Amino acid sequence: MSLIVQKYGGTSVGSIERIKNVAKRVKKAVDEGKQVVVVSSAMSGETDRLLGLTRELSSRPDPREQDMVVSTGEQVAIGLLAIALKELGVDAISLTGWQVPIYTDDAHTKARIKEIDTKRIQSELAKGKVVVVAGFQGINDKGDITTLGRGGSDTTAVALAAALKADVCEIYTDVSGVYTADPRIVPEAKKIPVISYEEMMEMASLGSKVMQIRSVEFAAKYGVKIHVKSSFNDEDGTWIVEENEDMEKVAVRGISHDLKESKITVVKVPDKPGIAAKLFKALGDENIVVDMIVQNVSHEGYTDISFTVNKTDADQAEEIAKKVAEEVGAEGVERNDKIAKISVVGLGMKTHAGTAGKMFEVLYKEGINIYAISTSEIKISCLIDEKYAELAVRALHEAFIENQETIAIK
Amino acid sequence: MSLIVQKYGGTSVGSIERIKNVAKRVKKAVDEGKQVVVVSSAMSGETDRLLGLTRELSSRPDPREQDMVVSTGEQVAIGLLAIALKELGVDAISLTGWQVPIYTDDAHTKARIKEIDTKRIQSELAKGKVVVVAGFQGINDKGDITTLGRGGSDTTAVALAAALKADVCEIYTDVSGVYTADPRIVPEAKKIPVISYEEMMEMASLGSKVMQIRSVEFAAKYGVKIHVKSSFNDEDGTWIVEENEDMEKVAVRGISHDLKESKITVVKVPDKPGIAAKLFKALGDENIVVDMIVQNVSHEGYTDISFTVNKTDADQAEEIAKKVAEEVGAEGVERNDKIAKISVVGLGMKTHAGTAGKMFEVLYKEGINIYAISTSEIKISCLIDEKYAELAVRALHEAFIENQETIAIK
Repeated sequence: MSLIVQKYGGTSVGSIERIKNVAKRVKKAVDEGKQVVVVSSAMSGETDRLLGLTRELSSRPDPREQDMVVSTGEQVAIGLLAIALKELGVDAISLTGWQVPIYTDDAHTKARIKEIDTKRIQSELAKGKVVVVAGFQGINDKGDITTLGRGGSDTTAVALAAALKADVCEIYTDVSGVYTADPRIVPEAKKIPVISYEEMMEMASLGSKVMQIRSVEFAAKYGVKIHVKSSFNDEDGTWIVEENEDMEKVAVRGISHDLKESKITVVKVPDKPGIAAKLFKALGDENIVVDMIVQNVSHEGYTDISFTVNKTDADQAEEIAKKVAEEVGAEGVERNDKIAKISVVGLGMKTHAGTAGKMFEVLYKEGINIYAISTSEIKISCLIDEKYAELAVRALHEAFIENQETIAIK
Repeated sequence: MSLIVQKYGGTSVGSIERIKNVAKRVKKAVDEGKQVVVVSSAMSGETDRLLGLTRELSSRPDPREQDMVVSTGEQVAIGLLAIALKELGVDAISLTGWQVPIYTDDAHTKARIKEIDTKRIQSELAKGKVVVVAGFQGINDKGDITTLGRGGSDTTAVALAAALKADVCEIYTDVSGVYTADPRIVPEAKKIPVISYEEMMEMASLGSKVMQIRSVEFAAKYGVKIHVKSSFNDEDGTWIVEENEDMEKVAVRGISHDLKESKITVVKVPDKPGIAAKLFKALGDENIVVDMIVQNVSHEGYTDISFTVNKTDADQAEEIAKKVAEEVGAEGVERNDKIAKISVVGLGMKTHAGTAGKMFEVLYKEGINIYAISTSEIKISCLIDEKYAELAVRALHEAFIENQETIAIK
């Protein structure tokens, strides 16, 4: 008997009508003889509403209590979905993160899954039930509710698929799959039928909103096949699978952009050993994830250190940077929220030289200045002014995707 | 060090501003050197909103799943209250029903508390924290979330006060205490400074909305002193305590009315043994609480059996009555939703004869027909047409409270 995990995002369960539609879709899989575990996000808008309440009380609400409040969004959704399923004659039971239980570490608001105990789920499945699990949440060693951070429901789904050895993890969303660029910016963007875990991870970390990076990491680690598709139609979406040789024939799989980061620069830092370590350790201690780091060559014993963080962490990061700057005798701290990170991603880069040069040339021709560059084996990212973001994505999509030739390798 | 339990109802935490006010009130008690356990209801309107969502999906939602959805209301409130307290510099931690844990039986949507494990609360209090507990909810043996039914937060507060041996259980609400009648109907109604558990239980079971009966039963059983007061001012409210001799000097303490019941009559039942047992066993099996029961004298081998139930149970009760009626060969089932139960309550009735006669006379003079009568040692209830409810309450208040003389006893 095949076992599938289906994950529905906030838009898919955004109203009572849509919850009924999701129930019908689940019933279809049950009628096809499948065992189904459903993972649901909160109804769209609910997480923001709850966060808003906590923010009315405090500019920096206690993380444990914030998780207590915010985790109710998914709890409501799973209860409603179970009721909708029962109304269609499908036996179902909802389980919160602590009821599964899904064990996480202590990092409230961005916890990581440590272990999933599947006994309860297995026993409910064995009774012929659909099990509806709350995404985005778990429980730590102290018995406190934790949340996994934005998009954490994807991680819940993939982790459950891995733990249950499911045949496939279907991620239902409001788009039809993963595109070569954001279709709202590039009308010529095309759906990617198959993409490797590695490419998807880069796309996700670079701003593609379709899947959360951690969930793709999980999938790659445990070999969970993912099928991203729309909950509003029956089209095939994008399969995320192990890399294969064919994939390298395409140099660039997609173009990503990310407006969610802020750049912080510590200006005129005395160029002595240990200062960068001090700064980034202080940020790490507060669980702030730093993305790009740029340190220029030293002039006259001083250097500038720039880094980017998620905008939601920028206030705290700036505060920490200022404290460290004062301690080490730097001149000051500058912050820029109006930046964009534009990236090109593709396995083919491994074997196809010249992608970086071509990217810089395209941006240069459009008169776009590059603040920082960061590369990996399969992606190149450039930090630019926010106002040029759409222009850059369109120009790069035209150069790399619309006019691309399949590269003959071997 | 004195330990108090404070319970805040939905209106008291009905907005962010009000939550801040509650936090200030809690801080005051902390500043006075008290250990404080706070029990909170859901923000006003929230429970109805959540119930509404379940009802949009099903006319009779699965009770387990309904509890899953509805219990989130209190969870949001306790998280917000803990954040508000921390913002005032008061260390606080919120705990859901399952985190305490508060163990209940299996009766979803109207569960009863079986046991409270106070270890976690005691340990948090010992750390100097205010502990904010979700009212209205618990966990059963299977690890499912249960709710205690409407007004269940009072029960949570009293049960916690009993388990923790608190000095007092303060019930904060939107009125200043318990009144001799509903002040919205009787402008002459007065606040009762002290009332016995027994009188309060009768008042509660007879429609006084200030406290839930089960919570008063609990308080009586464990001798928990209750102080009902307003969360919007600092006035003394009503103390609910052990009965004492002085209390019997007043024949009637208060007048209650209840519009929440429906009357169901099984018509022309063959007058054979065991039929009433069959009917009420079937209702009990479905956890339906029956209030008044009236069976008239048999005529020609047939009798009518009438009973009242809460309106929320009336559909189900009617269905069960119809099934039993068919099985035993009764003529049919009638239902009347437009009824009111009017009651006079007072310990003094034990020693003061003539209260019943006076009550019937007052109603008769107003031309109000009585459908059924039920009495206990300290109360008399009459079932009348709903449209006469306010008239009856005002007339009885005038006769028994406004013109009452203290009775000389002994």
